[in-house]
Amino acid sequence: MRAVLFHGPGQKSWDVVADPKIEDDTDVIVQVDAATICGTDLHILKGDVPEVTPGRTLGHEAVGTIVDRGAGVHALREGDQVLLSCISSCGRCAYCRKGRYGQCQGGGGWIFGHLIDGVQAEYARVPFAETSTYKLPDGVQPEQVLYLADILPTSYEVGVLNGRVSPGDVVAIVGAGPIGLAAILSARLYSPSHIVAIDPTESRRLHAEQFGADVVVDPEYASEIVADLTDGLGADCAIEAVGVPETFELCTDLVRPGGTVANIGVHGHAATLHLERLWIKDVTITTGLVDTFSIPTLLRLIEAEKIDPAPFTTHRFPLAEAMQAYDVFGNAAETDALKVLLERS
Amino acid sequence: MRAVLFHGPGQKSWDVVADPKIEDDTDVIVQVDAATICGTDLHILKGDVPEVTPGRTLGHEAVGTIVDRGAGVHALREGDQVLLSCISSCGRCAYCRKGRYGQCQGGGGWIFGHLIDGVQAEYARVPFAETSTYKLPDGVQPEQVLYLADILPTSYEVGVLNGRVSPGDVVAIVGAGPIGLAAILSARLYSPSHIVAIDPTESRRLHAEQFGADVVVDPEYASEIVADLTDGLGADCAIEAVGVPETFELCTDLVRPGGTVANIGVHGHAATLHLERLWIKDVTITTGLVDTFSIPTLLRLIEAEKIDPAPFTTHRFPLAEAMQAYDVFGNAAETDALKVLLERS
Amino acid sequence: MRAVLFHGPGQKSWDVVADPKIEDDTDVIVQVDAATICGTDLHILKGDVPEVTPGRTLGHEAVGTIVDRGAGVHALREGDQVLLSCISSCGRCAYCRKGRYGQCQGGGGWIFGHLIDGVQAEYARVPFAETSTYKLPDGVQPEQVLYLADILPTSYEVGVLNGRVSPGDVVAIVGAGPIGLAAILSARLYSPSHIVAIDPTESRRLHAEQFGADVVVDPEYASEIVADLTDGLGADCAIEAVGVPETFELCTDLVRPGGTVANIGVHGHAATLHLERLWIKDVTITTGLVDTFSIPTLLRLIEAEKIDPAPFTTHRFPLAEAMQAYDVFGNAAETDALKVLLERS
Amino acid sequence: MRAVLFHGPGQKSWDVVADPKIEDDTDVIVQVDAATICGTDLHILKGDVPEVTPGRTLGHEAVGTIVDRGAGVHALREGDQVLLSCISSCGRCAYCRKGRYGQCQGGGGWIFGHLIDGVQAEYARVPFAETSTYKLPDGVQPEQVLYLADILPTSYEVGVLNGRVSPGDVVAIVGAGPIGLAAILSARLYSPSHIVAIDPTESRRLHAEQFGADVVVDPEYASEIVADLTDGLGADCAIEAVGVPETFELCTDLVRPGGTVANIGVHGHAATLHLERLWIKDVTITTGLVDTFSIPTLLRLIEAEKIDPAPFTTHRFPLAEAMQAYDVFGNAAETDALKVLLERS
Repeated sequence: MRAVLFHGPGQKSWDVVADPKIEDDTDVIVQVDAATICGTDLHILKGDVPEVTPGRTLGHEAVGTIVDRGAGVHALREGDQVLLSCISSCGRCAYCRKGRYGQCQGGGGWIFGHLIDGVQAEYARVPFAETSTYKLPDGVQPEQVLYLADILPTSYEVGVLNGRVSPGDVVAIVGAGPIGLAAILSARLYSPSHIVAIDPTESRRLHAEQFGADVVVDPEYASEIVADLTDGLGADCAIEAVGVPETFELCTDLVRPGGTVANIGVHGHAATLHLERLWIKDVTITTGLVDTFSIPTLLRLIEAEKIDPAPFTTHRFPLAEAMQAYDVFGNAAETDALKVLLERS
Repeated sequence: MRAVLFHGPGQKSWDVVADPKIEDDTDVIVQVDAATICGTDLHILKGDVPEVTPGRTLGHEAVGTIVDRGAGVHALREGDQVLLSCISSCGRCAYCRKGRYGQCQGGGGWIFGHLIDGVQAEYARVPFAETSTYKLPDGVQPEQVLYLADILPTSYEVGVLNGRVSPGDVVAIVGAGPIGLAAILSARLYSPSHIVAIDPTESRRLHAEQFGADVVVDPEYASEIVADLTDGLGADCAIEAVGVPETFELCTDLVRPGGTVANIGVHGHAATLHLERLWIKDVTITTGLVDTFSIPTLLRLIEAEKIDPAPFTTHRFPLAEAMQAYDVFGNAAETDALKVLLERS
Repeated sequence: MRAVLFHGPGQKSWDVVADPKIEDDTDVIVQVDAATICGTDLHILKGDVPEVTPGRTLGHEAVGTIVDRGAGVHALREGDQVLLSCISSCGRCAYCRKGRYGQCQGGGGWIFGHLIDGVQAEYARVPFAETSTYKLPDGVQPEQVLYLADILPTSYEVGVLNGRVSPGDVVAIVGAGPIGLAAILSARLYSPSHIVAIDPTESRRLHAEQFGADVVVDPEYASEIVADLTDGLGADCAIEAVGVPETFELCTDLVRPGGTVANIGVHGHAATLHLERLWIKDVTITTGLVDTFSIPTLLRLIEAEKIDPAPFTTHRFPLAEAMQAYDVFGNAAETDALKVLLERS
Repeated sequence: MRAVLFHGPGQKSWDVVADPKIEDDTDVIVQVDAATICGTDLHILKGDVPEVTPGRTLGHEAVGTIVDRGAGVHALREGDQVLLSCISSCGRCAYCRKGRYGQCQGGGGWIFGHLIDGVQAEYARVPFAETSTYKLPDGVQPEQVLYLADILPTSYEVGVLNGRVSPGDVVAIVGAGPIGLAAILSARLYSPSHIVAIDPTESRRLHAEQFGADVVVDPEYASEIVADLTDGLGADCAIEAVGVPETFELCTDLVRPGGTVANIGVHGHAATLHLERLWIKDVTITTGLVDTFSIPTLLRLIEAEKIDPAPFTTHRFPLAEAMQAYDVFGNAAETDALKVLLERS
């Protein structure tokens, strides 16, 4: 089969590799129907994630059809079309038993395209299949649910739920890339009075409006706008969706006394925490890797047409043109790409 | 009357001042029956709290007997003995309506010995009396409840409740001064399996054991001990009870994935938040000024003899010897003082 | 002035009475700008609420303009236009301090048109004004917020919040009168996947659709419809909005294992609780009188145009035609009235 | 091997049956080291649980040593000594994924001695072994943890946690049989100010005192005692630990406005729910079958010597004398038996 292979920093190819095989009795093998590329894949290609070794198949977001299964897999069968969670869950460790699959200590967690071969490929091996995949409801198409593999539950769980977004809140979302947009989309599930999207790039602020932000603003004016909306108090919740110290620190400035800062961004550097101002301010700061426990909930909402992830898909490619898809996604400043859809041809 | 007056950094006196008078119709005047000194008073004397101006009466922890009341005070009357919360609550602003009295926007919050005259005095004016004081139950003595004015609710609300201490938890408490000891005492209300008290000073570790810590340890060995108790995972909750960057950062090192860091300490400097390690770790970090909403709960527990604050009182003085009491409290390294009790003579 | 007076079962009049006067220093007097009639007023007129004595002015839902105030009222002044909560809150008792104003032990709770004179009158005395009224934001009209006095917070707090309605839930709402419709409107704030409105009357089912129900159904088919939507499991939340044993028992039949039954209805008779089936089913059943703690939240949502209570107003009358308004409201089966708006002329 | 067999109402024997064998690849076979008898076993013997068919081996509480395992069992091995949860969990269904193992839809739930053969036997087959058993920590003896199979998590989860017992609460526990005593023991983990144990039998009230009740009382005087302790308000939490309508209704009488009634009892008949009084009282009523998600927590607390289940064991028998053990346990009124320990000889 063919797959997107990582060959070290800056190097990738669409190449022939051996077909995946059942290794453990809880594995399934899927033929990939749809996949996509994540900002994390670009980080890997820059060499920022040293655990990913040359030869590794990339990708952790896909929908596929089961073509083989291990002896211990009973609730799934060949022909089932399933969403693959970006997080594998052993289903048995103390963290998995509490729904914290991202912290799985039984061999799961974020492993696809990281510690094991990923899903930007014609076929993929899926460990812990019964506790890490979700059957597509009848009539639901792969592209409708593909972003439930990672980006939507990430923003919903780590941003909106950790941030305790509630009806009537003023929510500041710093960063309007795909993760920030998914935070806007999923924050609306809790009916805040105002979602303020903050981004220095005009095209991203435009996307933010399209995804439902009530106010969009350049970071320079963010504090002023939030103060205007809140009698000077600050945002009930500030969601960090970028991953650099400045945006995190902006969040701790924007939040009101008693409010919450929910960090979604993947950070490479330490930030400064102004405890000399914050100690007295009753703030809660959360971090997190997605668990994807919310996939069933989000799936129901998509099925009931309460949320629509279609606007994320700005570009489409056959899987075999994954290299061109990377070019488009990696150059979002020019292409204005949000998510690129790779489809089985 | 006489009171402890602040005269600028390093200067204080037990001096004659005018008796306090009713200024607002929700005020009461109390004769002080018992008071104590807080670490914060020492900070003020060092000049660390510039809002406190020369001539201010110090102190924010007392029990008193009402001797006069404003026209709007109906539920209290002359002769009632009341605990004064260190936090005044207007009872009407949005924060007070949610129990967040420390963030009162109606003129309350921490004002005693800070923005208005305090309670280390023979008499004190108490604003918002009906929403900021608690009648002593029959048979309860002032010294039994005095530490409910500040230290016990502070450690309970900002440490134990914010830290979501739960049965079976391993709780690391960094700092075994009075606030850390109050955190040990109140964490026990939730039956953790192990309270690990961390302090570099041997005499304080001894106090920690007396207050109920299961393990006491020097900071140097804290990570090792916590790892041993938790299969290498880390503490369910780490409580910061010192107020310097190093101890806060130790807490973020000690906490397990999915755990909570509850900051109680008053900080003068920013800390480094290692988001490059923490972003993926599902941690919750909280800060807070006490609200004292828990005073009724803690009062019931004292009355029912479920908690006993007596061991905090290491020294006793008549109120008129407040200057000597400051000497003893300010030199805890030699005197081993925890709390000094100032009593009406 | 004139007011709607209760003269015993079945008897009422629009009559001249003495103008209300300040009695306590926390009172204000308002001139009523808008008021409405509640199903509870009809119960009183039937003689179902014996605490209401002849001569009492009825009504507990109004917006008014302050014309006088007691000496202890500082945050409000003459000319302020305020929403009157149907629940008065002393602001000082243990229940009020926890936001449970409906259980106020300091003389508040539901008292308007019940234990003291009500607000279907030209003027009304409002006790505990600073903790029981809400200033109208600039530009907001009385009729936009009038239903925040009772019906909207009732359905939101006692139905939706007690029922823990969450994104993706299937919510069954039994009864599509005004309270049931308010439950539909406010349940949508939490983005359930399906709101199933259950009522035997076709005109009410039509209203339910207009207010946002996804499915409307006669009680006879309710179990079947809910089972179809939930793989046979049952509703995540069932909200009782009628007040008779049969509808309550239907709710306990409709709820899934682990789900919640939130009772809003005012009941005159005991129900049968089938513990022989329910003991094993992990259900939570809640009851409650509204506290109206959610008024500020709902006010922000109205101001931000996230909820629109306008469709509740089916009929309008000048206040002086209150008797005709009662006729229309009391005969909803023929008039299809939801709420009647009484306006100062 | 030999086992306790059910032969229809009133009939049981200690008899020879075929040894259990691995049926599914997630099964293990254990040799039973310790087992006990539950009140539910007596109900079965009375014929109250028609799902239990003649020939069934009884019992759902045991500790055993693994002697064989299915091909899909990797985290456990022969020789491991494990606590068997009374609740089997498939680990994969939506309920199991949320920790609600008692409602397992994948073939688990309460099945031992009910739908499959139980554990009052020399050997037992344990389905879903990796998600339904817990390895004993080093140095912990079977009898220390045996009551974690059912009774302790039942009272803790369904009584104390559902009842939201909190520090300072007044908790009324109706019934002082083994389940009520376990509720007393586990309620203490949350430091209520007063646990009031209510039972008509003096010997049981004596046990209640030994297990840590602060007050013991006959049902006749329960309301008076609870009123005295709570200024007439009622209990913060009332826990039903009997299973008849009268005791449930007593709980709804005893609870204060805003409080919780947590039903643990297994009921055979409907109760009357006085909604005409309760609708306005802000009460929460919960029911539930145990999930045993709390076993790891309770295990840590036993290991740390924070709780001690030893006093439950009033009588000991070799497993082969199970018939005599049933006689003693079934005649608790005379034998004063709490739990009888059946040990491998």
